[in-house]
Amino acid sequence: MPTHRRVVLAARPSGVPTESDFRLEESPVPDPADGEFLIESVYLSVDPYMRGRMRDVASYAAPLQLGEVMTGGGVGRVAASRNPRYAVGDWVEGMTGWQTHLVTRGAGFRKIDPTLAPPSTALGVLGMPGLTAYFGLLEVGAARAGDTVVVSGAAGAVGSAVGQIAKIAGCRVVGIAGSDDKVAWLTGDLGFDAAFNYKTESDYRARIRDLCPSGVDVYFDNVGGPISDAVMPSLAQGARVAVCGQISQYNNEQAEQGPRQWFHLIVKRARVEGFLVFDFANRYDEGRERLTGWVRAGRIQYREHFEDGIERMPAAFIGMLGGANTGKMLVRVRPE
Amino acid sequence: MPTHRRVVLAARPSGVPTESDFRLEESPVPDPADGEFLIESVYLSVDPYMRGRMRDVASYAAPLQLGEVMTGGGVGRVAASRNPRYAVGDWVEGMTGWQTHLVTRGAGFRKIDPTLAPPSTALGVLGMPGLTAYFGLLEVGAARAGDTVVVSGAAGAVGSAVGQIAKIAGCRVVGIAGSDDKVAWLTGDLGFDAAFNYKTESDYRARIRDLCPSGVDVYFDNVGGPISDAVMPSLAQGARVAVCGQISQYNNEQAEQGPRQWFHLIVKRARVEGFLVFDFANRYDEGRERLTGWVRAGRIQYREHFEDGIERMPAAFIGMLGGANTGKMLVRVRPE
Repeated sequence: MPTHRRVVLAARPSGVPTESDFRLEESPVPDPADGEFLIESVYLSVDPYMRGRMRDVASYAAPLQLGEVMTGGGVGRVAASRNPRYAVGDWVEGMTGWQTHLVTRGAGFRKIDPTLAPPSTALGVLGMPGLTAYFGLLEVGAARAGDTVVVSGAAGAVGSAVGQIAKIAGCRVVGIAGSDDKVAWLTGDLGFDAAFNYKTESDYRARIRDLCPSGVDVYFDNVGGPISDAVMPSLAQGARVAVCGQISQYNNEQAEQGPRQWFHLIVKRARVEGFLVFDFANRYDEGRERLTGWVRAGRIQYREHFEDGIERMPAAFIGMLGGANTGKMLVRVRPE
Repeated sequence: MPTHRRVVLAARPSGVPTESDFRLEESPVPDPADGEFLIESVYLSVDPYMRGRMRDVASYAAPLQLGEVMTGGGVGRVAASRNPRYAVGDWVEGMTGWQTHLVTRGAGFRKIDPTLAPPSTALGVLGMPGLTAYFGLLEVGAARAGDTVVVSGAAGAVGSAVGQIAKIAGCRVVGIAGSDDKVAWLTGDLGFDAAFNYKTESDYRARIRDLCPSGVDVYFDNVGGPISDAVMPSLAQGARVAVCGQISQYNNEQAEQGPRQWFHLIVKRARVEGFLVFDFANRYDEGRERLTGWVRAGRIQYREHFEDGIERMPAAFIGMLGGANTGKMLVRVRPE
């Protein structure tokens, strides 16, 4: 008899999360009632935003309560159905949480077509990270042909898409990532014009200035902290900073201190704007259609880093926060 | 025989400027050549941006060289003319610099009509500070009826106009200023809904939260530093921060440290945008027309703080940087 396994929040982390902040629970797989269907998760996503949900602080979403299943997106197949719109075998994507099974009436789920692209991409380049890159770069960052675009966290699921979309848009692209292998992937495979490894670079500011001689028109920020500090003096006139994530700050219990640099915004008539992909929900179809076209045409490449087994969720999440992944970090709960 | 007196940059200040950073020079008043006219300054302006020009750093304008006349706006009368477009007695406004006389062909100068409003207002509520308030609040801040607007440096030339324009636009207005007298002026005469004295308030963050229970839709920032830090957690969804000035930072030789708070921009989908009034130069006529109408209708009030004599320019400037003025700080070089 199959078992429903799920990862719940066991303790609120102080600083970097540890495995003891999570707990694996088991119970019998539930049966769908009339109108419901049962999803068997295949791929589960770990994403930086989840660190925020572990705090006891209201944000754009309510905090998780201790004992609650960890929030997260997943892709799976319908294993049983009493809902006429979902048939056994259908691939679906939505907010499964960190669990092997879920019974739902379908709110917030959508079917995916596995013939268009591998189902796992619905959590990465064709899912929330890809849409975040697409709308954040083109709408919030307003990237246009000829712009110099700098992206931090450039080898992550969002950043790697940002850089490639920027190239398609006719921009010059500079990536910042955390290993030489990541840098080699960005400049060798993905077509970034330049990239550097911040872990082996001592003077971010000088490096950015050298790599962006006419200034930074768009800075797509996934990380915050000293890397973002260093971009500010290189902003070009009318620059746009799209603030997508601040992963370098998420484990801090107190706000980290950094230089006050708003003066650069005046001199450069620049703006710093935060966004959430949900703000573009009414345009997801447009975004997915374009991203799918680019992926199928080979104009956007992607990588996936797989861990295997629901019990690996905490390790995958902790590893992703520390930059262990190149491309999208996923946990494979069962074979396709 | 009249003497041309001027204040030049004698030394680059380290930290707060002192009188020894300036030098008064004298020479005979020059005669206009063909096509030129002679301006006798009546009112000279001191403004926060001048501190930036004293640094040896290129900004949106070139730095002043040692020995150069200090940059600045002024209002005066034509005392001699060999230019058919300017007659003796005309009032003019433009970049006179810190000096009693100037010979010019008229580039960058405009005539002002002293029957519409006192000529000194061309340097304040009807001049650059008023236009800065108008475009910064309504365009960069995009203030709309029902918004809660917070303005720092609220009793200064720009801030006092910002608050009153916001009231005209149907906003709720909270001011932050540096004395109880200033606060009394804001709430008593200018119609601000609330204001507080940051010099006697120990918890800015709590005070702003209490005064803005539905959040801050527009923050018009003239000062930067800890006051701006404290506004960030109270930003409302979709908030706009118009960064006009950072006067609290201008005397720093090194960037001051403060909390990294970009995460608030993500959660609130908020933007921080710097601007210069010059970016709206093609709309100055519109701005002046509206401001003049409001001033003449008594809907915008203003105060002017006068010092007398060109030799008082350094003291007036240093005083303004320290908040000595309520409303616009001016130096009266000669009687009208």
